[in-house]
Amino acid sequence: MLSKNQKKLIASMTQKKQRTRSQLFLAEGEKCVNDLLSANFIAPLLVHTESWTPPPGIVLSTTLVEVTKEELSKISLLKTPQNVLALFQQPLINLNNNAMENKISIALDGIQDPGNMGTIIRLADWFGIENIICSMDTVDWLNPKVVQATMGAMARVKVHYVELQDFLQTYQATTGHQIYGAFLEGEDIYTSKLNSEGMIVMGNEGNGVRKEVADLVTKKITIPSFSSHKNRSESLNVATATAIICGEFRRSNNY
Amino acid sequence: MLSKNQKKLIASMTQKKQRTRSQLFLAEGEKCVNDLLSANFIAPLLVHTESWTPPPGIVLSTTLVEVTKEELSKISLLKTPQNVLALFQQPLINLNNNAMENKISIALDGIQDPGNMGTIIRLADWFGIENIICSMDTVDWLNPKVVQATMGAMARVKVHYVELQDFLQTYQATTGHQIYGAFLEGEDIYTSKLNSEGMIVMGNEGNGVRKEVADLVTKKITIPSFSSHKNRSESLNVATATAIICGEFRRSNNY
Repeated sequence: MLSKNQKKLIASMTQKKQRTRSQLFLAEGEKCVNDLLSANFIAPLLVHTESWTPPPGIVLSTTLVEVTKEELSKISLLKTPQNVLALFQQPLINLNNNAMENKISIALDGIQDPGNMGTIIRLADWFGIENIICSMDTVDWLNPKVVQATMGAMARVKVHYVELQDFLQTYQATTGHQIYGAFLEGEDIYTSKLNSEGMIVMGNEGNGVRKEVADLVTKKITIPSFSSHKNRSESLNVATATAIICGEFRRSNNY
Repeated sequence: MLSKNQKKLIASMTQKKQRTRSQLFLAEGEKCVNDLLSANFIAPLLVHTESWTPPPGIVLSTTLVEVTKEELSKISLLKTPQNVLALFQQPLINLNNNAMENKISIALDGIQDPGNMGTIIRLADWFGIENIICSMDTVDWLNPKVVQATMGAMARVKVHYVELQDFLQTYQATTGHQIYGAFLEGEDIYTSKLNSEGMIVMGNEGNGVRKEVADLVTKKITIPSFSSHKNRSESLNVATATAIICGEFRRSNNY
């Protein structure tokens, strides 16, 4: 059975302050929890129903609490609770410019929506992009809604929070790679030369890339619209745009 | 001032039953409301603050109610209320197979998430795709969360609800076009011949395209992953996948 304090701790994971204080975060669902366990994330507490099985080959050094479906749905943050949830230790991730050499990485400048953030982590995993660099005001990737939207991909992608301007200056000096930025006006991604290495900067949902960061971009790129409507959409959702751009980087260098 | 009944009517727009009964839907925000007005959608009721201005050249035959910011935020469904919201008449849209000839269209088989639905309508507009055909159990595109996520694009894209199997059979017989379907296994979109016309079928978030619909697909396609992780993501979010596929259809036929 779960103690009152354990329940309280789980519920507190919606708050950034409480996540920081405890250095924990919450993950729900078999795919997400098992992916994190397989990637050697440490779970001090794991709550599951009888239908859950740990990933094969993993020896757990974890407090396991078996509960009924009803009990799990009471503590779950999801509308459709799954058969497992766990508190994980926040990973310590070193930021290493050299590890980004000859690779594609993503920088996020003030992304606010948890769903967008989770989707971007998920597509980074899909496209084999290992590092996402975020401005300090980007939504916390350990927010339960973000964790949920990553569908386990957060176990394989490293997410860093930095002073983005300082970072990009060091990145450029260290690697010499292009800093691409997505703008409403720029070179057409389908005709522009996209290297197999570099940083792709994506901006905030409403305001785009801020000026100080835009000044560090070495190549502005854009996704062309194929609509002939005069009132056509002014932009794409940021996660959608990130997907199309990452896809085009991979396609144009691999086919 | 807004009457009690007007407030009640606005609040009821979260419910499909009430939308169907009244044949209305709710749109919020200047971009969305003005795009709909510009596309000649009829708004029986429009509530705005003093900072809102109607789109140029549009003569409104609408009940206009000016309220304070505080009053608007009380009736708004948004976390960050904007300066206008309106009730619009539901559009009557004819489904015409001939109008889909020589064009790319999208079919959605049981998409559930309003954010995904709205994002797909928005990207259809971006890529100049005029028609989206939905199975009867796909989330209602007049759900306020969907409307919000389209960012006005719903004014320019036609969304139809049909018995998807029957429709696809007629579509194929009428147009003779390919019916492409997105699957975890299929021809690589980057090497497969993608025509400049045809239907692209996208499946439900959890279960993909259902078997009866999959049987009507004439070409299964897939987005290749570039990850070398053995536990890599099994799939992309459906809106993300739709974006990448539509982009590749446009790129490969226009460049």
